[in-house]
Amino acid sequence: MKLFDFEEERIKQELTKLSAKRVLIQLPEGLKPEAHRMAKLVEKTGALPIISADPCYGACDVATSEAEELGVDLIIHFGHAKMLKHEKVPTVYIEARSIVNVDGAVTHALSLLTKYSKIGLATTIQHVQTLDTVRESIVRAGKAVVIGDARRLNYPGQVMGCDFSNVKSIASEVEAFLFVGGGKFHAIGVALATSKPTVVADPYGNTAYSVDEEAQKILKQRWTSIQETANAKTVGILISLKPGQKRSEEALKIKETLEKMGKNVLVFALREIQPEMMLGFPTVEAYINTACPRISVDDASKFRKPMLTTNEFKVISGESTWENTIKEGLFEN
Amino acid sequence: MKLFDFEEERIKQELTKLSAKRVLIQLPEGLKPEAHRMAKLVEKTGALPIISADPCYGACDVATSEAEELGVDLIIHFGHAKMLKHEKVPTVYIEARSIVNVDGAVTHALSLLTKYSKIGLATTIQHVQTLDTVRESIVRAGKAVVIGDARRLNYPGQVMGCDFSNVKSIASEVEAFLFVGGGKFHAIGVALATSKPTVVADPYGNTAYSVDEEAQKILKQRWTSIQETANAKTVGILISLKPGQKRSEEALKIKETLEKMGKNVLVFALREIQPEMMLGFPTVEAYINTACPRISVDDASKFRKPMLTTNEFKVISGESTWENTIKEGLFEN
Repeated sequence: MKLFDFEEERIKQELTKLSAKRVLIQLPEGLKPEAHRMAKLVEKTGALPIISADPCYGACDVATSEAEELGVDLIIHFGHAKMLKHEKVPTVYIEARSIVNVDGAVTHALSLLTKYSKIGLATTIQHVQTLDTVRESIVRAGKAVVIGDARRLNYPGQVMGCDFSNVKSIASEVEAFLFVGGGKFHAIGVALATSKPTVVADPYGNTAYSVDEEAQKILKQRWTSIQETANAKTVGILISLKPGQKRSEEALKIKETLEKMGKNVLVFALREIQPEMMLGFPTVEAYINTACPRISVDDASKFRKPMLTTNEFKVISGESTWENTIKEGLFEN
Repeated sequence: MKLFDFEEERIKQELTKLSAKRVLIQLPEGLKPEAHRMAKLVEKTGALPIISADPCYGACDVATSEAEELGVDLIIHFGHAKMLKHEKVPTVYIEARSIVNVDGAVTHALSLLTKYSKIGLATTIQHVQTLDTVRESIVRAGKAVVIGDARRLNYPGQVMGCDFSNVKSIASEVEAFLFVGGGKFHAIGVALATSKPTVVADPYGNTAYSVDEEAQKILKQRWTSIQETANAKTVGILISLKPGQKRSEEALKIKETLEKMGKNVLVFALREIQPEMMLGFPTVEAYINTACPRISVDDASKFRKPMLTTNEFKVISGESTWENTIKEGLFEN
């Protein structure tokens, strides 16, 4: 069953337009099983397809240096909207909109939202095209709908793992949020960023559920991690080598602040932040992660040591309070 | 307990000579716990130390592009001898010789070598300085000793995961090999490359043991993998993005050969070849790995699909026989 629109005609057109000879295909984990089909599509135009087999979690992680090293003349990046202002290698973004019908899931979600009359809408890039019809369904149920647009992302109502500006911009106007999409991560992000009840309408499972309890649990875990990091003697700072996640200067500022607080600080650079990484550095008691904040929060249970986002670090440095950090967003850069 | 010589005085001298301001420290997995101490050593000279936290298995894997991306002016690479002819970023190699006494382990090994009167010696870079005294011990036991030097590696008797030329050069002159060092991987490589009985003298455990049974087991596994790959309809070819492991052109030649054989071929590029990688590509039945051959053989049990080295591929393509491939080396590039 085909679940996403891969815009195959546009891919063919772009390949012809650029007369691409060697093409790097990059897909996020969930879409990687489509790599085979996409490679064959590229091959039919006469170009050589190379599939990037490294993990990919966002448009911050376009395989530009890989493409340069491989002498590639076009990157086809699937599953995310353009984010980097300029790419060193021509890059086509195929957003991979879902073609799954969301109506059933939204109907289930409405039964969990009966208490509320003003609903904010949120979704990922895969489902932005459904928001108009979702809005209609909710209005038909007698509720008011607000879709935020803080003008930082490509589409109104869109959220990203590191950007919840659209939902934050309307949090004070609504009583609850409805998130359309699969997986809990983004929905929990909405709940944490807005402190509002949040219900997921999951079109893949054709179900709906609240993420409020889980969001509360994560808040408690994050507070514990902050305390543990505040008490750590040796702290590691992580710099990512991914093009849209490399924040060396911010890392060095954090180093200075930590040293003023009397901490022993080590700076690490790496491509993939994985749990095994920590095994090599037994003296480090806690980490500050300047890369994708999602790693700190979403994968927290897999890491043996606390790993704070840069916003959470501000609670330790005194630049912000816990309450303000929750308001500003635990995840956001 | 200090187990290795980190040449701390030389590190300080190199840092001063180059007036390095930002230094990338790279260590293989087993030495990573020393990263903290090395960072503090660098820091004392006034430079900023950044620790590479990605996996590192050889001098083929110097973090050059990482260093460029981080604006680093010196890489200190531990645990391996220089291998790349030219590095784009100044690189100091600290071989990290072991300072563990090997005498006890060699005595144990001699009791497993009583049947043989001509012994070949082999070791890794960490123990090359012990070979002269090991030779004396064996000579005192009334045996002849041969240490090979095929002039491809930095030291006589040295073996690397992808280069067993020194032991192959003397295989016909000796009855058995004594390998000095920890871990089974290199010793199994010696046994497979020479088809000679091979005993490990492990100075860390102060023990000795034969690896012959395990080498036979691996040979059988490799033969099975070759059969499975020969029967596969869809084959993936892996290109590494590590500077000393990137063999794009060889990968493309293999692609052509496989296509002539009627296979469906997909080409993949990646930095770390890890078992999870295969989950994304369910249609691929077998892989040809043009990167570090050690990954194919050492980690075979962790991968769900067969993954051949380029030498093993030659058995399928008809360029070589299984017997010749064993002689040429399963692991070698």
